[in-house]
Amino acid sequence: MAQLKISVGILGATGVVGQRFIQMLEAHPWFEVAWLAASDRSEGKPYSEATRWRLKTPMPVQVRDMVVSPASANGAPKVIFAALDAGIARELEPQFAAAGCAVVSNSSAFRMDPSVPLVIPEVNPDHLALLEQQCWRKQSGGYIVTNPNCSAIGLVVALAPLYRQFGIESIFVTTMQAVSGAGYPGVASLDILGNVIPYIAKEEEKMEEETRKLLGKLNGGSVVDAGFRMTAHCNRVAVEDGHTESVSIKLNQPAEREAIIEALTGFKSIPHELGCPSAPEQAIAYESAADRPQPRFDVDRGNGMTVSVGRLRPCGVLDWKFTVLSHNTIRGAAGAALLNAELLRVQGYLS
Amino acid sequence: MAQLKISVGILGATGVVGQRFIQMLEAHPWFEVAWLAASDRSEGKPYSEATRWRLKTPMPVQVRDMVVSPASANGAPKVIFAALDAGIARELEPQFAAAGCAVVSNSSAFRMDPSVPLVIPEVNPDHLALLEQQCWRKQSGGYIVTNPNCSAIGLVVALAPLYRQFGIESIFVTTMQAVSGAGYPGVASLDILGNVIPYIAKEEEKMEEETRKLLGKLNGGSVVDAGFRMTAHCNRVAVEDGHTESVSIKLNQPAEREAIIEALTGFKSIPHELGCPSAPEQAIAYESAADRPQPRFDVDRGNGMTVSVGRLRPCGVLDWKFTVLSHNTIRGAAGAALLNAELLRVQGYLS
Amino acid sequence: MAQLKISVGILGATGVVGQRFIQMLEAHPWFEVAWLAASDRSEGKPYSEATRWRLKTPMPVQVRDMVVSPASANGAPKVIFAALDAGIARELEPQFAAAGCAVVSNSSAFRMDPSVPLVIPEVNPDHLALLEQQCWRKQSGGYIVTNPNCSAIGLVVALAPLYRQFGIESIFVTTMQAVSGAGYPGVASLDILGNVIPYIAKEEEKMEEETRKLLGKLNGGSVVDAGFRMTAHCNRVAVEDGHTESVSIKLNQPAEREAIIEALTGFKSIPHELGCPSAPEQAIAYESAADRPQPRFDVDRGNGMTVSVGRLRPCGVLDWKFTVLSHNTIRGAAGAALLNAELLRVQGYLS
Amino acid sequence: MAQLKISVGILGATGVVGQRFIQMLEAHPWFEVAWLAASDRSEGKPYSEATRWRLKTPMPVQVRDMVVSPASANGAPKVIFAALDAGIARELEPQFAAAGCAVVSNSSAFRMDPSVPLVIPEVNPDHLALLEQQCWRKQSGGYIVTNPNCSAIGLVVALAPLYRQFGIESIFVTTMQAVSGAGYPGVASLDILGNVIPYIAKEEEKMEEETRKLLGKLNGGSVVDAGFRMTAHCNRVAVEDGHTESVSIKLNQPAEREAIIEALTGFKSIPHELGCPSAPEQAIAYESAADRPQPRFDVDRGNGMTVSVGRLRPCGVLDWKFTVLSHNTIRGAAGAALLNAELLRVQGYLS
Repeated sequence: MAQLKISVGILGATGVVGQRFIQMLEAHPWFEVAWLAASDRSEGKPYSEATRWRLKTPMPVQVRDMVVSPASANGAPKVIFAALDAGIARELEPQFAAAGCAVVSNSSAFRMDPSVPLVIPEVNPDHLALLEQQCWRKQSGGYIVTNPNCSAIGLVVALAPLYRQFGIESIFVTTMQAVSGAGYPGVASLDILGNVIPYIAKEEEKMEEETRKLLGKLNGGSVVDAGFRMTAHCNRVAVEDGHTESVSIKLNQPAEREAIIEALTGFKSIPHELGCPSAPEQAIAYESAADRPQPRFDVDRGNGMTVSVGRLRPCGVLDWKFTVLSHNTIRGAAGAALLNAELLRVQGYLS
Repeated sequence: MAQLKISVGILGATGVVGQRFIQMLEAHPWFEVAWLAASDRSEGKPYSEATRWRLKTPMPVQVRDMVVSPASANGAPKVIFAALDAGIARELEPQFAAAGCAVVSNSSAFRMDPSVPLVIPEVNPDHLALLEQQCWRKQSGGYIVTNPNCSAIGLVVALAPLYRQFGIESIFVTTMQAVSGAGYPGVASLDILGNVIPYIAKEEEKMEEETRKLLGKLNGGSVVDAGFRMTAHCNRVAVEDGHTESVSIKLNQPAEREAIIEALTGFKSIPHELGCPSAPEQAIAYESAADRPQPRFDVDRGNGMTVSVGRLRPCGVLDWKFTVLSHNTIRGAAGAALLNAELLRVQGYLS
Repeated sequence: MAQLKISVGILGATGVVGQRFIQMLEAHPWFEVAWLAASDRSEGKPYSEATRWRLKTPMPVQVRDMVVSPASANGAPKVIFAALDAGIARELEPQFAAAGCAVVSNSSAFRMDPSVPLVIPEVNPDHLALLEQQCWRKQSGGYIVTNPNCSAIGLVVALAPLYRQFGIESIFVTTMQAVSGAGYPGVASLDILGNVIPYIAKEEEKMEEETRKLLGKLNGGSVVDAGFRMTAHCNRVAVEDGHTESVSIKLNQPAEREAIIEALTGFKSIPHELGCPSAPEQAIAYESAADRPQPRFDVDRGNGMTVSVGRLRPCGVLDWKFTVLSHNTIRGAAGAALLNAELLRVQGYLS
Repeated sequence: MAQLKISVGILGATGVVGQRFIQMLEAHPWFEVAWLAASDRSEGKPYSEATRWRLKTPMPVQVRDMVVSPASANGAPKVIFAALDAGIARELEPQFAAAGCAVVSNSSAFRMDPSVPLVIPEVNPDHLALLEQQCWRKQSGGYIVTNPNCSAIGLVVALAPLYRQFGIESIFVTTMQAVSGAGYPGVASLDILGNVIPYIAKEEEKMEEETRKLLGKLNGGSVVDAGFRMTAHCNRVAVEDGHTESVSIKLNQPAEREAIIEALTGFKSIPHELGCPSAPEQAIAYESAADRPQPRFDVDRGNGMTVSVGRLRPCGVLDWKFTVLSHNTIRGAAGAALLNAELLRVQGYLS
C-alpha cells in the first residue's frame, strides 16, 4: 500500500528558489506540494499566472492551477519550505513556527540565532537538537531550521572531512559566484556581461560566520563555533549556475596529498545512508583533470547535490590549496533545504 | 627642429600583443615602427594581408603596406619589441641580442634568467643595471630586457608601495583573468561562455617567482629575491580585457587603513617624472566605491596603464585584503614593454 | 571673444541615456549643462549621489555637485534634452513645451504625432518645419522634436541614400539588439547570458511606423509616409552596445552592387556640412571584410555616430541583402537627440 | 530473449559531434558502439586519452578504453556514423560505402549529390529510395545517407507541414547560431564574447540549397527541388547550443493563424510512429508565450529533438512570420544522423 505523502507548503513560491523547490518536489517520494504562498501581488492568482517560470524543465502540472495563498499560517500545511528575503523572513517565519509549522528555511534571517539549527545533513546533523531550545517548539511544536548561504555550503561540505580528520587552523577562500545566486531579476546584464563584480553585499560576513557555526560543536544546548581563522573574498562572474571557489587551508596536523583526497572522496554521506531521497550517493567528487571542476561540466553532478573538488596542490602561504564547485540554487538553496526536511523526517521531527 | 625618431622593429607583429605594440606606437613621440616580423606563413606579405587585425581602433596606415620580414636580425633595427611565444623567444631573442639589438621582450623565456632584468619602471628601474652582466652586451652591445607576466604586473605595482613602506610577509592572490591574456585564437568560446576555468598552465608559478624577483633587491650584479611567502590561484573568466585579483597580505609592521591608501595613491610614478610618454600620471588609482574596480569601468584608466585598487578591508587570516585590476594586454604586455623601452632611452641604454 | 554657450537641461538625467547626454555634452562647443532633473527619489540630491554612473569615462566634474531639480519647467533652461520613459514623457514633455522650452526628446511618446517632427539630420532635416504646427510653438514658442527608436535609426540612415536614388518597394529586417537598449537595470542577466530573446515589446511596430515617417515626404504641413512594405523581427542578444541588423530590400529600379555601395559611402552628411559638431564626417561607412560590421570592432566608429554597413550581396527573395550596425545609445539615442539640437540651432530654432 | 544489438562505428569520434554520437548511443536499444576512428593523432590510443570530452554527462564507460582505430574500412562495422569535416568526408566516406558500409553522414560533402539521400525522417523519408542509385549500393551493398546542416534542419521541420498543407512561395530566414555549430575549438572567445558575427562561411548557400532538396519531390530516381524563392542571413551569437531563426514566409494559399498552428502542432512524427527510439513524440512544439522559444529554456525539448516554434504573427512583406529554435548538435547533427539510421533499420536497409 502506498504511504500517504506529507503535505508541504512553499513560502516565496514564485522566486528563483521557490521554483527550484517546486521542481525538486515534483516527483518526491515523501513530500507533496499542497500550498503555495507569495507576495500580495500574486495572491489569489493561479500559480501559472503569478509566476514567470525560469527553469529549463516545464512547470509541473500539479501546481499550474494551484491558487497562490496569502502568506499566513492559517490553513497552511505543517511543513513549510521558506524561500523569502531576509527582511520578510524575519517577520513571517516566526509566525509559522508559532502556529506549529516546521519551517525549513533558506533565508539568512535566523541562521545565526543560537537556538536555530544551521544544518548540512552530511556535516552536522546533530545540530538539529538545537531546535528543542526554541520557544515555538515548546509551545506549539513548531520550529525553524535553516541551511547555509549558497557560497558557504560547498566550502563547508569540502572542509568537513578535513576538519574532522586533520583539524583546520586557517581558511582562505575567493568565490566566483553565479548570477542566479542573486535571484531574479537580480544582477542586471549591463553589470555582468564581460565583467567581474568584486563585491556581494554581506556575503563575506555570512560565509565566515556560517562556516564557524556549521563546523562548530554542539555542547549542552548550544553550538560552540569552530575556532579557525578565516577570510573570504566574494566576486560575481558571468556564470548562470555554479559557485567556483579558490580555497587555501592550514591544517592542525600535517597530511599527505593522498590522505586528503581519500578523506574527501571517502566522506560518508549520512543522509544517503539514512535513505534521504535527495542525498547524493557521493557528497564530494574529486576531479582529477588539471582544469576541473568547471561550472559548465560539473555543476549538475549528483543532480546538483554533489560538491566537486579539484586541483589539490601545496599552498605557499598555508598548507594546501584547491578548487571547490557547487550548484548554488540546488545544493546551495532548494536542495539544501529539502535535504534538511528529509533529515528531519528520518529523525522523527516531522511526525 | 623635430628630433629624429628611433626606428623600432616588432617580432611577432601579427599576434594580439604585436598588434597592441603597433597601436601604441602609432603616434609615439620617440619611436617609429620600421620593421615587422612574424612567422614564416606571414613573411613577404603586406602586413594588412598577413594580419587579422583584432583591435577596436583601425590598423595604422603606416603599417598597412609594410612587408613582413623574416624573423632574422639581418637588416632589423637596433630596438626590437618582442611578442613571441616562450619557445620561439628562447631561440630568437638571443640571436637579436647577439646582433647588437636591444630586445625589449614580453616573453617569459628569459624573465627568470639571473642576468636579464625583469622590470616595471615604477617599481624596480634600478634592475636595468643587470643587463651589463649579459654576454651579448659585452660583445655586441645588444641585450634582453623583460617585463612580467600580465597577471603579476598589476599585483606588483599595487604591492610595491606597501612593500617599501611597511614590508610584506605573506601574499595570497586569486586571479580572474581575461581571455585576451591567452592570445588569439586562444580560449575557445565553448570553454568559457558561462564558465570559469580554474587553471592556466604555469601561470601560478610565474606569478609567484616573478613577484619575488620584481620586489627583490639588486645586490652587486644580481637580484636577491624578496623573502615573503606567496600563493596564487589562477582562474580564467569570460572577460575580454582586464585581470581582476583578490589579494590578502600580511605586513611586516602594522599599518592603518588610511596609511595604506595613502601609500597606494601617493606611489610616485618614476617613469612619469622622467618624462616617459606612456607612463600614467598615476601608477595606482584607489577606487572608493564598494563594488569597484571592475573591468567594465576601470580597465582603461590611464590609457590602460594605471592599476586600480579598491575594497581595502581587514583580512581574517592575514592583515588586509583588497581587489586589484589591470589591463592585461596594455599594462600587462605591450604597454609594459613600451614603458621599459622608454625607460631604457631616458637612462641612456638606447644610444 | 568666446561665444556664450546655450544653457541646456536634461530630463531623466540619471538613466542610461541621461548619462550619455551628460557625457556627450561635457566638452560641447555650443551647449552647456545647467540643469538636471530626475524622478522624485533623486530630487534635491547632488547628481553624484543620485546617480549610479554606468559609463566608462568618469562622471564630468561640472555635474557632480549639481543638485537634481524637480521635473518642472519652473526655472528650467529653454533647451531641454528629454530621456524619459514614454509614459512619463507623455505627461511632462508638453508641460515644458507649453512653458516655452525646446524639448529635444528621445522618447517614443510623441514620435508619431502628426505635428511632431521625427528627425534624423542626415535624412529628413526639412521635417523640422512640422514644429510650426504645434500649439505650444504658437503660444509660447516651445515645441517638441523627436529622434527615432534606437533600432530604426541605423536602418533608416542606411536606407536613405538608396531610397532617394533607387526607390524602395519592400524592406525586411531582423535585429539583434544590445542590452543597453533596454536601459538600466533593464535586461536581467539570467535572461540573456548564453541566450537570445526573440521579442522586444512594441519594437517591431515602432521600427515599421517610424521608418515610414522618417522616409516620408513633407507636404504642406504634414508628412506623407513612405509607401514601401516592411517587416521587422526584433531580437535581444548578449551584446552591451550596438544593434546589428540583417536587412533585405527590393528597389524600385534595378541597381548594380557598385552603384549601391557608392550611394552608401557617398551619402552626404548634411549636418556635418552645416557644421554640427556631433555630426560624423561619414554618416555611413561600408565595411568590405566578409564578416563585418561587428559590434566589437565597429560600434564606436565616428564616435558612435557613423552607421556601418557590410556584406552587400544579392537576395533570393528581394533584390539585395546586407548587414547594418549602429551604436544604440549614441547614434540611437543621446547622440541622435544632440544632433537634432545642433540642427535646430543652425536652422535658427534655438534663438 | 534480448535481441542482439547492431554494432556501429563512429568516424570522427573525438570531435563535438562524434562525442554527441557516443552520448546518444550510450543506452541505445538497437545500436552499440563497437568501433571508433579519428585522425592519425588519436589512432592507437584509448578513447579516453585521445579525447577532450566536452559534454555535461560523463564519458560512457564502454568507450573509455576502446582503442581508436585508423580511419579505414578494414575491420570496421557495417554501420558507420560519420562526423567528419567536408574535405575528409569527401575522401573517406566513399571508401566505406565501397566496402559495403551504410555510411550515415553528418557531413556536407555529399548532401547535394543527386544519388545521395538528404533526409529528415519526419519530412522526406521516401528520399531514402535514392540510395538505390548509388554505385556502391549496387556493387557492395554500401551507401551514403546524409542529414542536413544544423541551421537548415530546424527550419525545414517547421516548414514541412506548412509546405504540404498550404504550399510555400517565398522564405526569408535570419539565423542566430550557437558556437557549438562550429565545432571545437571553433569560434574563439575573443571573437564572440559580447559580439555578433554576421557571417558563417558557406552557411547561407547550404541552407538555401538543402531546404529546396529536402522539400523536393522524389520523381523516378531523382529529387526535383522545391520551387520557392528563399534567402538566408546567417549570424553567429554568444549562445552555447541552439540555433534561433527569425522566419517569414509567403504561402501559396491563404491560411488563418489557427490553421497554421494546427498544422505545426499536428505534424505527424513518422519515425515516432514507426517506433524509432530517438524520434520525439512531437516533432514540433508551439510555444505560446510572447517571448519564446529561447535557447535557454527550450533547446532540450524532446531530448533536443523537438523543434520549437513561436511568435506566429502577420508579416508586412510576406504572409506570416515566426521564430524557430532547434538544438544544433542534437537535432541538427548527431541526433539527426541517429534518427536516419533508425529509419534505415525500420525500412530494412540495415539488414
